[in-house]
Amino acid sequence: MPLPSSIAALTAALSKLPGIGPRSAERIALHLVQSESGAVSQLADAIVAARVKVHLCTTCGALTEISPCEICASPRRDASLVCVVERPVDILSVDKGGTFHGKFHVLGGKISPLDGVEPEDLRIAELEARLQAEPIQELIIALGTDVEGDATSYYLAKRLARAGLKITRIAHGLPAGTGLEFADELTLSRALEGRRELS
Amino acid sequence: MPLPSSIAALTAALSKLPGIGPRSAERIALHLVQSESGAVSQLADAIVAARVKVHLCTTCGALTEISPCEICASPRRDASLVCVVERPVDILSVDKGGTFHGKFHVLGGKISPLDGVEPEDLRIAELEARLQAEPIQELIIALGTDVEGDATSYYLAKRLARAGLKITRIAHGLPAGTGLEFADELTLSRALEGRRELS
Repeated sequence: MPLPSSIAALTAALSKLPGIGPRSAERIALHLVQSESGAVSQLADAIVAARVKVHLCTTCGALTEISPCEICASPRRDASLVCVVERPVDILSVDKGGTFHGKFHVLGGKISPLDGVEPEDLRIAELEARLQAEPIQELIIALGTDVEGDATSYYLAKRLARAGLKITRIAHGLPAGTGLEFADELTLSRALEGRRELS
Repeated sequence: MPLPSSIAALTAALSKLPGIGPRSAERIALHLVQSESGAVSQLADAIVAARVKVHLCTTCGALTEISPCEICASPRRDASLVCVVERPVDILSVDKGGTFHGKFHVLGGKISPLDGVEPEDLRIAELEARLQAEPIQELIIALGTDVEGDATSYYLAKRLARAGLKITRIAHGLPAGTGLEFADELTLSRALEGRRELS
């Protein structure tokens, strides 16, 4: 017996979600068609509502329901410190650490000529405008550690350099709670390069 | 920064789905709010459409969009053979094997007095009505192999016994492609009990 077509269609739509394979998608679809109608429409409504309400902060590019977003609007955030990240979700990762109290700027990608991503496709002009308008003293570049992340970091450091602005990049080295035997060569050589004096 | 409330609500709704933990739910929610609007409403529509269109076949209890379902309506299915399963999705499992060409009957559960499931909560009266109305010669009971599955199987065999009706239960034994060392004691003792002569 083939699955009823509406279940097959739902399975196909669900399997496009990140981390959901065909089997999980089928399992979720079969669960949904047997769930209480109320709970099912609540889920559908939550999906649509989130997509409609959430947009990108016009200042920093974070996911937000209000603009400017909570972080941009907060007087308790250090306006002199801006952390530059690739994607809106990276803000959550940095913020979960709880040690960073500055503001953010989302680039929207990394320079990657092979994928057709040029500097003008990123929110760099918006960052330059913020450097003019806001009392920013330090930009912390927190991009990934792949080739594109490296290239974009150096590009930004060169393009945004101006008197009175410190441009830094987050450290590369051993992750917490691991041993040398688990680190690859590049990580180890970067950890050596980035060594700091014990005091 | 807390997540925007509509994302938090969506994450909560998603994490109620089977196999979706809080982290996957957050990941899917963040993916959805950044996806194209069209794809997102398509998913929401597919969820609602499947729930609205799919119901249980009034005869056998399968998930279907038409009633009677495709299997009950099919003249190519052997009407003398009915496989009794616990849940609608079990039909898919049996049918995927491709060796069973009879019809099905979904009980809707297993007898479990501790959980408040009594025989009258199951679709046993419906099965008795089918035994009267249809030319059924064999009932194959294909319930799970736990205590409730055993109890329900014996209950059904006793209650449904009548002249001219064969009641069987699917075999318990070693699963395909495994060795004796992976089988638990109960499986092994059932496999020994159910031994068959090689001919």
